[in-house]
Amino acid sequence: MSINETSRAYGAQKSSIREIAAYAGARKAEIGSENVFDFSLGNPSVPAPDAVRASIERALALPATQLHGYTPANGLPAVREAVAASLTRRFGDGAASAGDLYLTCGAAASLSITFHAVVNPGDEVIVIAPYFPEYRVWIETSGATCVEVLADPATFQVDVASVAAAITPRTKAVVINSPNNPVGSVYSRDNLAALADALREAEKSLGTAIYLVADEPYREITYGAEVPWVPSVYDRTIVCYSYSKSLSLPGERIGWVLVPPTNPDHDDLILAVAGAGRKLGFVCAPALFQRVLMDCVDCPSDVEAYAKNRRALTEGLSALGYEFIEPEGAFYLWVKALEPDAEKFFERAKALELLPVPSDSFGCPGWVRVGYCVSYETIVNSMPAWEKLAASYR
Amino acid sequence: MSINETSRAYGAQKSSIREIAAYAGARKAEIGSENVFDFSLGNPSVPAPDAVRASIERALALPATQLHGYTPANGLPAVREAVAASLTRRFGDGAASAGDLYLTCGAAASLSITFHAVVNPGDEVIVIAPYFPEYRVWIETSGATCVEVLADPATFQVDVASVAAAITPRTKAVVINSPNNPVGSVYSRDNLAALADALREAEKSLGTAIYLVADEPYREITYGAEVPWVPSVYDRTIVCYSYSKSLSLPGERIGWVLVPPTNPDHDDLILAVAGAGRKLGFVCAPALFQRVLMDCVDCPSDVEAYAKNRRALTEGLSALGYEFIEPEGAFYLWVKALEPDAEKFFERAKALELLPVPSDSFGCPGWVRVGYCVSYETIVNSMPAWEKLAASYR
Repeated sequence: MSINETSRAYGAQKSSIREIAAYAGARKAEIGSENVFDFSLGNPSVPAPDAVRASIERALALPATQLHGYTPANGLPAVREAVAASLTRRFGDGAASAGDLYLTCGAAASLSITFHAVVNPGDEVIVIAPYFPEYRVWIETSGATCVEVLADPATFQVDVASVAAAITPRTKAVVINSPNNPVGSVYSRDNLAALADALREAEKSLGTAIYLVADEPYREITYGAEVPWVPSVYDRTIVCYSYSKSLSLPGERIGWVLVPPTNPDHDDLILAVAGAGRKLGFVCAPALFQRVLMDCVDCPSDVEAYAKNRRALTEGLSALGYEFIEPEGAFYLWVKALEPDAEKFFERAKALELLPVPSDSFGCPGWVRVGYCVSYETIVNSMPAWEKLAASYR
Repeated sequence: MSINETSRAYGAQKSSIREIAAYAGARKAEIGSENVFDFSLGNPSVPAPDAVRASIERALALPATQLHGYTPANGLPAVREAVAASLTRRFGDGAASAGDLYLTCGAAASLSITFHAVVNPGDEVIVIAPYFPEYRVWIETSGATCVEVLADPATFQVDVASVAAAITPRTKAVVINSPNNPVGSVYSRDNLAALADALREAEKSLGTAIYLVADEPYREITYGAEVPWVPSVYDRTIVCYSYSKSLSLPGERIGWVLVPPTNPDHDDLILAVAGAGRKLGFVCAPALFQRVLMDCVDCPSDVEAYAKNRRALTEGLSALGYEFIEPEGAFYLWVKALEPDAEKFFERAKALELLPVPSDSFGCPGWVRVGYCVSYETIVNSMPAWEKLAASYR
């Protein structure tokens, strides 16, 4: 074989999340979708706000050559201004201006581009396990080693001492994802401040620069917790965002990278982000959905639907004696498996038509992720199966 | 500086095409847009067909979670079926089936993904100069060396003997672009057959596999010439396509990679293409515009508008004594500079508010590219300036 073996392997290796989702689809066809409780995917169950549709209809009145033409590589200036204005309203003067933003084809592109902007071959990038498994793919593709550091096993906040211990002279970045997929935790201001202190101390003692990559697609999906603005806590932050969850547009691929003006390497990073996008073949973010942001950047997410699901799921599982991390954001419940081997627990759940994702997929043993971005009925109707599953361990 | 220097450099280095376009914009603001003859960009001047708008409006009637949700990484099955059916109608039974296609965020993504699918570090990829300068960026990013082979200087067909001479044991691929940007030439069936023979001979004598990457965004923009279906000439072909030009949707980023069923490495390449897309952070092609293809895959391009421009430009320049390559496709005229140094010729043109792109940007001395995807009036009104330019050399 003379083609690229790594690419072939990544194509052949199905993500376990996608595999479970595919099984769920097949099983639904077999026994009826009402009899399969598919908690595997993170596809928003809430529709995009009506304002998105209205915005698309409005845009269609523009001359087609203008509407569908190439935009600048970093996005239409008016769109970046609208996003920056929104960030400034929410996070204070100086949070962002249009020149600090680079619009992308969604969060995956934001992260891939960010890693390619900062990483040199042989560098290390720290991720907090459990973590979204594609992080490893993009980190390794950029030429770095992916270093897993377990979150605090009691709270699933960042275990700052463990991060500090994992830092080496080759550490180029730490990735955090809060609100967190797969746990649903939100990192507190104190936790982030402690992390920032540790990073600054390491930078000082090693004479290096360490970037904090804040992956925040779930920022708007919260249940009361504060989601601190990371650039206000740590200067060398790069924020990666997507509208996949907040506007329920995962298939349209629209998001951004922000290099905050307070980042001391701002000007070089802006160039490196643009250059990384160019290197990878991202010409511009999809033009029509860039324009949608101008109208919808401040649309509230329909968190109430997820909050209702969350309540039903946590109350139901709690009554059945399951242990879990109380989710403060995103739409995942992190449930302790009833035996040490999460895969075995999953197999027993699967036999009852319950389909969460075992935690091993996220770099952490002993739990399952239950995605509650599903219909309310799915949650309610799944309870007898959860009960049988618990009973089978008694 | 500890960030990635290559990315920073690619971000800092402006493409000369974009630089000229930016100058044109500034100059128009200064002296009025009717006084600047901007032939720099390849942004279609013809609007997207009405069917595109109708298709978007129809799609908006779908439930939003379905319309805007994640699609499979290779694209919606029904869309790939529609594209494959169109290719089969046009190029014969067995041209493509849905499983052979991987939908992408446009031609840049198609090419970047293809290079990452086949290249191993140290490989070589041959391009036919003059060539679209971003090829080099994507080839080098994938880990290969970009090897330039000049086209036949009389006809700008592939110089097969020169390609054969440039092939080494490390040659992994040859990229062709027909109809050609920047020349407007279309490679004849005989020329492609000779190239295919040379590649097969080299494969046999070296014991290697050489892929022919056919970059075809201009396939539908032709003026009577046949554009042979490359997989029918050479088995180890990979076709890269985009709807940027044929449907005038450059900002929406929608295209595909086809691994033809006749490619002997088909199954491995399909996996490698999917894996390369995953590695680079392409989750799926924009969902709404995937659906547009279902309705518009056979929409005819409005070639007549470009044909009218082409006639006015070639007749006008011909009468003034300019030499050029008669364009058979795309929307560029390749005009011989009136002195050996194309940059100096460009500077003299610029002083007359004429803005083509000097050929050095495309890896070839002595010519300029005149993009005629502009208004008809721009072409007609530019003639006195072209006349002055010619007179200045007498």
